[in-house]
Amino acid sequence: MGPQEAPRTTWPKNAWYVACTPDEIGQKPLGRQICFERMVFHRGRSNQVVALEDFCPHRGAPLSLGFVRDGELVCGYHGLSMGCDGRATSMPGQRVTSFPTIRAFPVLERYGFIWVWPGEADQADPAKLHHLPWAESPGWAYGGGLYHIACDYRLMVDNLMDLTHETYVHASSIGQKEIDEAPVNTRVEADQVVTSRFMEKIAAPPFWRMALRGAGLPEDAIVDRWQICRFSTPSHVMIEVGVALEGLGGYDAPADRKASSIVVDFITPETETTHWYFWGMARNFAVEDTALTDTIRQGQAKIFGEDLEMLERQQDNLLRHPDRRLLRLNIDAGGVRSRMMIEQAIAAELAAAT
Amino acid sequence: MGPQEAPRTTWPKNAWYVACTPDEIGQKPLGRQICFERMVFHRGRSNQVVALEDFCPHRGAPLSLGFVRDGELVCGYHGLSMGCDGRATSMPGQRVTSFPTIRAFPVLERYGFIWVWPGEADQADPAKLHHLPWAESPGWAYGGGLYHIACDYRLMVDNLMDLTHETYVHASSIGQKEIDEAPVNTRVEADQVVTSRFMEKIAAPPFWRMALRGAGLPEDAIVDRWQICRFSTPSHVMIEVGVALEGLGGYDAPADRKASSIVVDFITPETETTHWYFWGMARNFAVEDTALTDTIRQGQAKIFGEDLEMLERQQDNLLRHPDRRLLRLNIDAGGVRSRMMIEQAIAAELAAAT
Amino acid sequence: MGPQEAPRTTWPKNAWYVACTPDEIGQKPLGRQICFERMVFHRGRSNQVVALEDFCPHRGAPLSLGFVRDGELVCGYHGLSMGCDGRATSMPGQRVTSFPTIRAFPVLERYGFIWVWPGEADQADPAKLHHLPWAESPGWAYGGGLYHIACDYRLMVDNLMDLTHETYVHASSIGQKEIDEAPVNTRVEADQVVTSRFMEKIAAPPFWRMALRGAGLPEDAIVDRWQICRFSTPSHVMIEVGVALEGLGGYDAPADRKASSIVVDFITPETETTHWYFWGMARNFAVEDTALTDTIRQGQAKIFGEDLEMLERQQDNLLRHPDRRLLRLNIDAGGVRSRMMIEQAIAAELAAAT
Repeated sequence: MGPQEAPRTTWPKNAWYVACTPDEIGQKPLGRQICFERMVFHRGRSNQVVALEDFCPHRGAPLSLGFVRDGELVCGYHGLSMGCDGRATSMPGQRVTSFPTIRAFPVLERYGFIWVWPGEADQADPAKLHHLPWAESPGWAYGGGLYHIACDYRLMVDNLMDLTHETYVHASSIGQKEIDEAPVNTRVEADQVVTSRFMEKIAAPPFWRMALRGAGLPEDAIVDRWQICRFSTPSHVMIEVGVALEGLGGYDAPADRKASSIVVDFITPETETTHWYFWGMARNFAVEDTALTDTIRQGQAKIFGEDLEMLERQQDNLLRHPDRRLLRLNIDAGGVRSRMMIEQAIAAELAAAT
Repeated sequence: MGPQEAPRTTWPKNAWYVACTPDEIGQKPLGRQICFERMVFHRGRSNQVVALEDFCPHRGAPLSLGFVRDGELVCGYHGLSMGCDGRATSMPGQRVTSFPTIRAFPVLERYGFIWVWPGEADQADPAKLHHLPWAESPGWAYGGGLYHIACDYRLMVDNLMDLTHETYVHASSIGQKEIDEAPVNTRVEADQVVTSRFMEKIAAPPFWRMALRGAGLPEDAIVDRWQICRFSTPSHVMIEVGVALEGLGGYDAPADRKASSIVVDFITPETETTHWYFWGMARNFAVEDTALTDTIRQGQAKIFGEDLEMLERQQDNLLRHPDRRLLRLNIDAGGVRSRMMIEQAIAAELAAAT
Repeated sequence: MGPQEAPRTTWPKNAWYVACTPDEIGQKPLGRQICFERMVFHRGRSNQVVALEDFCPHRGAPLSLGFVRDGELVCGYHGLSMGCDGRATSMPGQRVTSFPTIRAFPVLERYGFIWVWPGEADQADPAKLHHLPWAESPGWAYGGGLYHIACDYRLMVDNLMDLTHETYVHASSIGQKEIDEAPVNTRVEADQVVTSRFMEKIAAPPFWRMALRGAGLPEDAIVDRWQICRFSTPSHVMIEVGVALEGLGGYDAPADRKASSIVVDFITPETETTHWYFWGMARNFAVEDTALTDTIRQGQAKIFGEDLEMLERQQDNLLRHPDRRLLRLNIDAGGVRSRMMIEQAIAAELAAAT
């Protein structure tokens, strides 16, 4: 790896991003680059998660190669012990009071995720955290995973806010001809961009046949299907998806006549052309069935894996042709409006900073 | 891959280059970069080969990740269907008449190769195609292959127009001491640079012993050997090679007293420092013997593979020392004159463009 | 590899660096980049080692892909034969008297190493070679190895001139708590920077228990331990290390009451951010025990391997933050003063050149 310039601002900094999942922080500290900042995560003395700059003030070694002792990160090179506030607390044979400090990033553990605030610490308000009701309800089960993808995080937002691509990219799992035949509706609701699509009286594609089985419903049934994508800043996309036995109201059908879930997507920038993609599914049926959770996770892993090559090569094509203007069709409205919301957030940040 | 600048002009654009072989275009489209242009190849409705820019005008996805339906390329991301002229023909739920077009490159299928014209389409004249009589004659058999090589295509031209390197690089197959002891003659004949070398009363090296066997001649015979390299723009090198039983006229010996063939080299630039090397051999003996074709192909694959490291590390050395002037010895005259012919073609193009 | 700019001067050029070990130069020539110069090493007619620029003056091919014939390097591309002074001596069919010459680098074979002088040849004085008495004494045995490390060679100097890192990086082998508890003393003695540390009445760590066994002493004994690091330009670090049975004078204890050795480190720059690290150990006990030599070598290989990731990621962090000033604590004094000595050598060179 060589020297890298700080990127132009392509994301809001003053926002909560998913940094990792709790299981990623164990005995060893975790190093991860978020919004271009190299961070190191560990648990402090009271088990709270701590996010620090991954740079020892002594000689620049990465603290993520060190270890945790009594809730403090100890540099693995010469033993500097770093406090959770970014101030060195001790070092063998040294007085550390005048040592330079490193950044401590505001961090929260909630909803089964670790959230970090890469911007101004004094503006980090836990109240600004995205609310995930299903994550606190016993009536829901969740499973998910993480991909590292070599493209601008906004290409992933585009991808998720226009599900017509399922017909082509995911033809063998969740795609079906009816998706791109159904009209799409895009609107802004308060702080969300919402794109929805409803398909009536169709056969369920393979993934949903599996879900129907899991929900104790006939997998061959004719169904009504829905997809409601909700983008909110900085880069979260929650997609309500499901199928109901036909003619019972679709999205509004009785709970025992449908299989529904929420596709959960947290898209965290790493650099201008790479991102961390936390994907998963929350469901409110068969919530005790951990084998089903695993089956769904494997299915999703395969499906989302199908997007990777397309996204990375799309990124590559766009880098080759920075001057070309892409089309903004009606199906692209979800992505286009989401990007506008991102740009507004960035502009508001810049205005507040001056 | 990151952004790349368009290269300076190191090749003529208005010329027919070999892009691929027919067997490379099957059910799936083929993406390949030719003269810095990223192209995608597929077969249209009447089975003709089509070469388009590998960039979907909708969102910049590579069309080579899509599929072919009724002779049209369909983008694998959102289903845009692209006509063979670079105009979108349809897309689910969209009117495509005002979509931007992409480039369609003139293309020809002839002599067992797909040829593409990366320059001005209106100047693409099939009559300018290099003529290959052996490719249309039942009296000849052909076998070949493709290498991707990380060096300027002109280093490969140099390589092929100075076969003294066989003595060193290919010591165990076609090289022999007599090659660099024999005088070389270089001349320009009409639109070709010709370098020739004749060796009399020598033992045949291993490759030619095999060929003598294949031709039904004694492999231990003392032979007269010849090498006649013919360069023509943009970057084709045809090399007449062979051995005849000694004293019967060498190159002009009776057909049943010699084993001869044409080493076929199409050298297609990819970028300034990489190229596609289509190599092969056409022979006019034992033409029904497909096992012999395979044996020769394997032999050639091994021999040409011996050049790769040398060429790539030579390229690397030259990039390190762009200021050093290389020697131009008599043995280098073939490459030197070929490069002059390339430069003249480029200059003529530039003059015509102003 | 692509084009590279010549680096700023971060090392003295007029100095003897270890280039390789004799066993690396066999039938085949050895190509290696030293102080940014690409060199090729082979043995000449009288078995002397020759170091030439790895660039054939004919067409820029790397001579290291060639072969040795009668003590001369023959280019593997077109057969140019290169004299040991960098002048071509022959080439098939050519007169070579007016060929450009390539650089021949002064080279010495001594102490079991090949040393090269990458700077001005007329200043290459064998008397300036670092003296290694143990390498010429039958009372000593030596074993060592080579690592290629992706960091500035001076980070390795820092590493070796501050052994407090052993406590952390090498916790399971040579590290122990007492190291960073013992005061360190740094001073300049003539042309050396010396950093020393003495620990009394301690338990021997695993590596030294093994050495005590090898020396026929009780491995469980309480010992006095010492570390005396000696830096000399351009980049050699000799570390006297050892343990003696307690209370017998430590470093000055009788020879049969201690196990001691010299950690040998030759740190040769390759580029500004990579180097060759020749490591080893010379010992004056059980010198006939070649199995012990192997055991020590394997132990060292493992120990020095533990530094690699730390050094390479430290380098990466520093490239990201070129503006940050690192701390210079007392424990860093060895590295700081060594760098000053390097800078003085560079400044003296530059002054002499004007």
